[in-house]
Parts: sequence; C-alpha cells; structure tokens
Amino acid sequence: MPPTETFPHATSTALSTVESHQTPQDLIFYAGWWCPFAHRSWIALEEKGIPYQYKEVNPFKKEKHFLDINPRGLVPAIEYQGKALFESLVLCEFLEDAYPNHKPSILPGDAYTKAHARIWTDFAGKTLAPGFMRLLMAQGQEKQDVARTELYDAIRKFSAQIKGPYFLGEEFSLVDIAIAPWVVRDFIAAEHRGYSRSDVGTEWKQYAEHVEQRGSVLRTKSDLDKYAENWVPYLKDEAQSQFAIALRAGRAIP
Amino acid sequence: MPPTETFPHATSTALSTVESHQTPQDLIFYAGWWCPFAHRSWIALEEKGIPYQYKEVNPFKKEKHFLDINPRGLVPAIEYQGKALFESLVLCEFLEDAYPNHKPSILPGDAYTKAHARIWTDFAGKTLAPGFMRLLMAQGQEKQDVARTELYDAIRKFSAQIKGPYFLGEEFSLVDIAIAPWVVRDFIAAEHRGYSRSDVGTEWKQYAEHVEQRGSVLRTKSDLDKYAENWVPYLKDEAQSQFAIALRAGRAIP
Ligand SMILES: N[C@@H](CCC(=O)N[C@@H](CS)C(=O)NCC(=O)O)C(=O)O
Ligand SMILES: N[C@@H](CCC(=O)N[C@@H](CS)C(=O)NCC(=O)O)C(=O)O
Repeated sequence: MPPTETFPHATSTALSTVESHQTPQDLIFYAGWWCPFAHRSWIALEEKGIPYQYKEVNPFKKEKHFLDINPRGLVPAIEYQGKALFESLVLCEFLEDAYPNHKPSILPGDAYTKAHARIWTDFAGKTLAPGFMRLLMAQGQEKQDVARTELYDAIRKFSAQIKGPYFLGEEFSLVDIAIAPWVVRDFIAAEHRGYSRSDVGTEWKQYAEHVEQRGSVLRTKSDLDKYAENWVPYLKDEAQSQFAIALRAGRAIP
Repeated sequence: MPPTETFPHATSTALSTVESHQTPQDLIFYAGWWCPFAHRSWIALEEKGIPYQYKEVNPFKKEKHFLDINPRGLVPAIEYQGKALFESLVLCEFLEDAYPNHKPSILPGDAYTKAHARIWTDFAGKTLAPGFMRLLMAQGQEKQDVARTELYDAIRKFSAQIKGPYFLGEEFSLVDIAIAPWVVRDFIAAEHRGYSRSDVGTEWKQYAEHVEQRGSVLRTKSDLDKYAENWVPYLKDEAQSQFAIALRAGRAIP
C-alpha cells in the first residue's frame, strides 16, 4: 500500500523558501518537499532566480487535479503558462531554455562542454541515484555489501571526473544538481548501510561538502530528521513508490 | 566471452553511405554498423547533413586507440576537433548544439515542445529500447509473454502521444531517432518472440512504417539478415555485451 501520508510540509530553511513562493506566477512548481527528484528542479529554480509558485503535492494520493498535470502521477511537475511538463532533469533543461536571461546558466555555453555535462548528468541519473536507493533498500549484510560496493565503484567513476569545487570546476551545473539531493540525504546510508564519504574517496568527500553548502541547496533543505522518517519504508524494503517497485523488479526508474 | 567478431562492415545502402564518408573531417564518427545506439547518432548526422568521417569499430575488442576515445569502450563515440564524446543521445544533442546552421533541427525551437520531446526521448531510451532487448533475451514462453506484454504496454503509452506521421507531427525529431533503430530491427522480435506491430496498435504500426521510410534511416540501414545474425546470441540469452549483462542484472543500460 503506497504511503498516502508523509509529513505534510517542508521544514527549516526550505519552509521559508516555500512561504516566500506562494504568489501566483507564470510557472507553478508541483513538488513534494521530501522528494529527491523534485529537489533537483527546485534547486534549478532557486539557482536561476526564476519566479515560481510552490505547490506541495502528495503524489501517492493520485488526485485528479494532479494527474491532469502529470499523467504519470509523479512529482516534480510544472505548469507553465497553462501547459504541463514533468521529469526532473527535463524540467531543469526546460528552465534553461525558457529563461535564457536568468543567470547563472546551469549548462555551459560551449557545445563540447555541454555534452560532457550531459554525459555525467545522465550517469548521475541512471547509475548514481538508483545506486543510492538500491543500497537503502538492500536487506541483509551480504546484499548491502554488494550494493555498497557497486555504488562506490560508480561514485568513483564520477569522482575521477570532478574538477572541483564543483563537477565542471568553478561553475555549479546540472551535473551537480542531478546528484545534490542524494548528497543531502546520504547521511541515511551512513547511519544504516555502512556508507562513508571518505571510504569512497577524498575527491567525493570534498565534492559532497561543496555541493551541500551551495546556497540553492541550502535554501531547499528540510530538517534531516524529517528526511530520515521518509526513508524508513525503504530501509525495510517495504516502500511502494513507483521507483521502489521498478528498482525491485530490475527496471529503470520511471 | 564477448563476441570479438561481428560481420566486419555495413552492407546495402549503409555501405554506400560509409563509402562516401571516408574523407577526413572535423568530426570522426566511431560506430558499429550493427549497433542500434550508434545507429541513432548516425541517423542524426545524416538527417542534418553534417560532414563526418565514418570509422568502423568493433567495441568488443577494447582496443587501446578506442578506449582513449571512449573509456567505457562503447560505440557510438565521436572525436570532434580532437576531443572525444560518447553516449548516443548526448551525441545527437551535441550535433544540434555544435552545428546550429545545419537544418533540419532535430529538436523544436520552442522551449515547451523541446521539453515535451525530451520527456519522450528519455522514455524511448530508458523504457522502450530496453524493453525490446529484454523481450529478445527472454527464454521460455512464460517469460516471453511477460516481456512482450510489458513492451506492448510501454509502446502504447508512447503511441498515445504520436501526432503522426512522426512523433511530434510533420517534423522528424530526436524522439523518432531515439527509437528508429529498434523499429528497423523489430522484425527479429516478430520472427522469434511473437511481436507484431499491429497487435500493439494501428498508431504504432503506421508510425513504424513512416519512421523506417525516412531517408536518413534508409541511408544507414544494412541488410536485414546481417542484423538478424547479430542478435542470435541475444535470442539464446548468451550475449555478453555490457548492456546484455546490465539488463540481466536488472540495471539500467550503461
Ligand atoms: N523520473 C522521475 C521520478 C520522479 C519520482 O519518482 N517521484 C516520486 C517521489 S520522490 C513520486 O512522485 N512518487 C509517487 C509514486 O511513486 O506513485 C523524475 O526524475 O522526475
Ligand atoms: N548508452 C550507450 C550504449 C552503447 C552500447 O551499449 N553500445 C554497444 C554496441 S550496440 C557496445 O559498444 N558494446 C560493447 C560492449 O558491450 O562491450 C549509448 O547510448 O551510446
């Protein structure tokens, strides 16, 4: 049974950010404060200083008003001048395309570097984020060890490409946004699954510290204990979200 | 043991295209004539009329000269003014960014429609293409039925969005490119796995016929029996390519 109740609203600095984004705007941002995917698009909105109205949604309720916006029933989604879009990373690219004058850009201007950024954004999306979630969902020492090793290997491939302080160097970009929500939440893997940033490597540890200190990341961050509550069903492998079901079945996250 | 031998070169119209792309150019395209991922980027190159030099690579040999270009050892890859890039869909976006004056564009100019195109390109990449390959790899009637049903469900979600003749309407786009190579090869699923375009639905059947008749798709197409040979190890679930191993392990394709 999907969890129809989560803590109902953002807390801490994220709550202030929500409260200051209640005025109607061209762009309505539908999010769950707890959702790492929504967190990506939220960071991009904050990063670029785009005017938006924040609306908290519980996607597990599959309410008609929300399914009209995202038929897949997932947060994040946006409504832009009355038209709906979804998919966290696509939304970030959309913000870049639709608001070209809002700086900083989250993608490099040069075609080659942009492609490099997209290769590693894709890697963060299809390998790193699922790797974290598989580790949290793994039951028993042996499976957890396998999942942790797999995750470490993947993070090390990524780490080898970090220029520092951010992935591409001085500029914070879509690559950082794609993984930032899992960096913010990696304390859960540390507490329950023997994960440690420094075991992964120094580059990763330093990178993670830079990413979690970024203004846009801090402004969208809720209390850590509230995040932790949210992952309890995952730690027991009882979560029934679409991505938990997909990961369990060996499918890409929807 | 990975197959270190595949039929060594393109055939039919694809061979003529290869032969007319041997002159050195700013952009070197590293491909396997048989590889559906490489096929995507090849269609994009042909679609946009970009000058390129075609180089046939057998990625299973993991030769040093190729690993220097793509450390993941996968085709497609490109070398552009001496710098290397890989990942089929990222390469398509790169061609769009690096050659803005080469028309037609494979992505819409309008930010909203572009995001819509990216949502469904992503769906084709993470759900449709793996779905085809999982069906081919499925052993025994029961597993094949499950894989076929799963694939049909996914294609129908996609089909419901097709404007016709192409996904976005009159303009051939990245969405079509993302799935075209599997459309060209779907006869293998028809011959061996009870797949039928018309069983999926009329929209899909008509769409598939339009896509496979596109000039850029025809110009990059090899003999069907050569494609068929290539999939024999998959049909026996003996393939040892990285994506076969990943699909078997329930991971996203690398
Ligand atoms: N691929 C999607 C994934 C979004 C997603 O899975 N969101 C979760 C919350 S973190 C959700 O809405 N779950 C509702 C459900 O599973 O029914 C994205 O990147 O936006
Ligand atoms: N995600 C990659 C996948 C590319 C890929 O898997 N290519 C295969 C051939 S179809 C390959 O090079 N395989 C070599 C290997 O598995 O070692 C892309 O979209 O470019």
